[in-house]
Amino acid sequence: MITRPFDEISVGDAWSGRGRTITETDVVSFCYLTGNWLEIHSNVEVAAATSYGQRLVQGSLTFSLIPGLVAWDHRYVVAFYGVDRLRFLRPVFIGDTVHPELRVVETTPKDDDRGVVALAVEVRNQRDEVVQAGVFKLLVRRGSLPLCDTAAAVGTTDPRTEGCTDG
Amino acid sequence: MITRPFDEISVGDAWSGRGRTITETDVVSFCYLTGNWLEIHSNVEVAAATSYGQRLVQGSLTFSLIPGLVAWDHRYVVAFYGVDRLRFLRPVFIGDTVHPELRVVETTPKDDDRGVVALAVEVRNQRDEVVQAGVFKLLVRRGSLPLCDTAAAVGTTDPRTEGCTDG
Amino acid sequence: MITRPFDEISVGDAWSGRGRTITETDVVSFCYLTGNWLEIHSNVEVAAATSYGQRLVQGSLTFSLIPGLVAWDHRYVVAFYGVDRLRFLRPVFIGDTVHPELRVVETTPKDDDRGVVALAVEVRNQRDEVVQAGVFKLLVRRGSLPLCDTAAAVGTTDPRTEGCTDG
Amino acid sequence: MITRPFDEISVGDAWSGRGRTITETDVVSFCYLTGNWLEIHSNVEVAAATSYGQRLVQGSLTFSLIPGLVAWDHRYVVAFYGVDRLRFLRPVFIGDTVHPELRVVETTPKDDDRGVVALAVEVRNQRDEVVQAGVFKLLVRRGSLPLCDTAAAVGTTDPRTEGCTDG
Amino acid sequence: MITRPFDEISVGDAWSGRGRTITETDVVSFCYLTGNWLEIHSNVEVAAATSYGQRLVQGSLTFSLIPGLVAWDHRYVVAFYGVDRLRFLRPVFIGDTVHPELRVVETTPKDDDRGVVALAVEVRNQRDEVVQAGVFKLLVRRGSLPLCDTAAAVGTTDPRTEGCTDG
Amino acid sequence: MITRPFDEISVGDAWSGRGRTITETDVVSFCYLTGNWLEIHSNVEVAAATSYGQRLVQGSLTFSLIPGLVAWDHRYVVAFYGVDRLRFLRPVFIGDTVHPELRVVETTPKDDDRGVVALAVEVRNQRDEVVQAGVFKLLVRRGSLPLCDTAAAVGTTDPRTEGCTDG
Repeated sequence: MITRPFDEISVGDAWSGRGRTITETDVVSFCYLTGNWLEIHSNVEVAAATSYGQRLVQGSLTFSLIPGLVAWDHRYVVAFYGVDRLRFLRPVFIGDTVHPELRVVETTPKDDDRGVVALAVEVRNQRDEVVQAGVFKLLVRRGSLPLCDTAAAVGTTDPRTEGCTDG
Repeated sequence: MITRPFDEISVGDAWSGRGRTITETDVVSFCYLTGNWLEIHSNVEVAAATSYGQRLVQGSLTFSLIPGLVAWDHRYVVAFYGVDRLRFLRPVFIGDTVHPELRVVETTPKDDDRGVVALAVEVRNQRDEVVQAGVFKLLVRRGSLPLCDTAAAVGTTDPRTEGCTDG
Repeated sequence: MITRPFDEISVGDAWSGRGRTITETDVVSFCYLTGNWLEIHSNVEVAAATSYGQRLVQGSLTFSLIPGLVAWDHRYVVAFYGVDRLRFLRPVFIGDTVHPELRVVETTPKDDDRGVVALAVEVRNQRDEVVQAGVFKLLVRRGSLPLCDTAAAVGTTDPRTEGCTDG
Repeated sequence: MITRPFDEISVGDAWSGRGRTITETDVVSFCYLTGNWLEIHSNVEVAAATSYGQRLVQGSLTFSLIPGLVAWDHRYVVAFYGVDRLRFLRPVFIGDTVHPELRVVETTPKDDDRGVVALAVEVRNQRDEVVQAGVFKLLVRRGSLPLCDTAAAVGTTDPRTEGCTDG
Repeated sequence: MITRPFDEISVGDAWSGRGRTITETDVVSFCYLTGNWLEIHSNVEVAAATSYGQRLVQGSLTFSLIPGLVAWDHRYVVAFYGVDRLRFLRPVFIGDTVHPELRVVETTPKDDDRGVVALAVEVRNQRDEVVQAGVFKLLVRRGSLPLCDTAAAVGTTDPRTEGCTDG
Repeated sequence: MITRPFDEISVGDAWSGRGRTITETDVVSFCYLTGNWLEIHSNVEVAAATSYGQRLVQGSLTFSLIPGLVAWDHRYVVAFYGVDRLRFLRPVFIGDTVHPELRVVETTPKDDDRGVVALAVEVRNQRDEVVQAGVFKLLVRRGSLPLCDTAAAVGTTDPRTEGCTDG
């Protein structure tokens, strides 16, 4: 996603993320973690009686998965500090496979060291329908980094960092 | 939270939610579920070298916990369909105890059956600092419901539904 | 469930709890947590060869779910201190949806501050069959509480506490 | 535990189980699984203000761990069908190490094939205090089994079954 | 598995382990724990387009399950210190039931107290196909132990230790 | 890790992976998942009495984490099919932070489409001690790929694929 300093990022830059199938295990684990057991997510009988006819994936689960489906280069991303106009647009069902698409919609210098990047995010399902949309606000570092200078340089597929080791 | 039909809800109505301590287990489980292993959340050595000096709780974890910390009466709440201007304002650390506070900031009739309720949400920690804020958008049913008419009437502490049983 | 002080509770008072579908994730997670991997719960081949023809949900899992399916008002419930004559009456299978029903069967004053409430608990499945039954013993506070006096007043749907906030 | 047919079991037979430290992960995972978030288990601030001064382990968690801490030979144990007079006697705290002790208190033939064995169970902590007690009711097979006749013969440390393989 | 001291173990001794069905919950939980989300394990659409036509169980998950499917007597097993020539031979799919088979292939005295036991391990599925094979290297104690001398004597089905209690 | 076709990989190529702190939650979750509850991993009292003085992280947990700590480009990695001479060299304790280092030690063409790459893997802790070592065997594709041709091109930090989208 953000793999360059702020000043090399332009409005219109775009990335797609990896796909992931949302399983029953994910939905149940999200009930576990959040303690939110609304029956539309957790009761097959109640869900069958709704217009959906089945359990829904939680909107905040789909939202929470987005950052893990893209590569973050935290040498550049200083902070993920907010979300604007997040909308849960279509139902997501157990077994759907979703992936995010991101596009830079605004870049605003903040100070000598950092700038704000606004990313329009869409989550699409296996039928290419947009199920969720919103705008992520990131604080991004200005100025490029020496290669191999931090642990952050490892564990990526960035060819510029191949050969970097810890010692 | 929303325990009345749309027309009985007014701007200024407010609720507080239950508190919950965010444990290391929660932070690690959220890394598990999301696949987002940014080292500020998952690497004690890296986190110790930052200005925070320790691992941070994920902003989207704190956000995801909110609905489970308040009581939802899904006889009235038709859908939680979006979030506006969500901001991660202060760091949350492992061991902090957070609770949400909610206040109605706008009510907009949508059609004969439903209206939109906008709730300003603040998450506060054990020092009463606001760590996260945003606006939740809910679709809420109009018109009151006969008591004891659905399974939804049970499992609450609403005294009006005491005595309701399934048979 | 218990949403009143001891002296306002009478034999015959009854409540029903929310329903929850017991998923494969729940059964496997309970094997995880307990370390009890009896093959009737964890081996599809062995289970298929029994008279049940499929894996069984653990009796102690169904039992453990009961308190989470009813609302507890811990301003009144001092302690859940025991269970009498718990019986696992019918098999529960993956995909079954269960809910508890509770009825006060005995109230015994203990001292000036507390009394014992015995609740007959039945867990019923989606075919309204009783799959588990027992008696829960609770210690309950006497005397009513001022509203809004504790954090416990929040996060419920009790209309008497609406408007209560932490500050 | 039960590693012999019904007719070779006598009142007074006794076993101890393996010890296990109950971790914060266990307590949080049990909140996850059960959806029961009583603040005495999940809110450090609320728990600190009680006479315990800290979070309590859930009584039903400790109960649920018992069967996983003893060896069950399911060639003999037909069913674990009930529990009598289960009492949560002392608080269990995060970090405590518990193990069960079991003693046969009653044997009742039921029919030609099976008998009922009642086991008095005590769970003890690292200070040898009894924290939980109750009586487990098991249905146990009569008549001994040929060795090596089922998959059940494997995966145990019973020396009589060493050498048993599946083919 | 190893339930005797080193000098009573001979090349050719063999054991089988308990079977376990590998569920979707197991595969997803292993993605959770490891942070390895290769799409062949986590994306139904991508997996459907491969020659397998479905998601694969992770080889290191199947490997990790082996020790939990056999009984270890840790009064004798000093350490599990290595694995030789581990091979993932056939795909394992969600719903397959696997069990391990182990055979002593080498015994090497190391010093007066301990010897090395090499165990050839095969994991077989419900069609008796070998899906994984390797050699486990264990360090095993020499000399027999007095019965009932340690907590390790309890919690097993070894009839020689029946009657052992902690006090 | 492997981010190039087989013929561009040479003996001596090296990568380091991301670091991760192994938490109590990880150790307990691995007991959960594997059902292996050896007391050196799960009983604080027993572990305190050993020469280590505390619980050990499971060797197979540390092994299982390796693939998730490096970036895999599955457009090139056809299969991870085996491990040679895996050795658990030093104890890993709860709270240790580990990362893997990988070095190509052998490349063997297999057919026109694929070759075998042998990677020497070392896992190091926060004191730069090698705690685990072994050799991973991978089957790697020959011939380069057109950019942007598959979903695999997205979700990486490889600058050559920036701008690739699904449509």
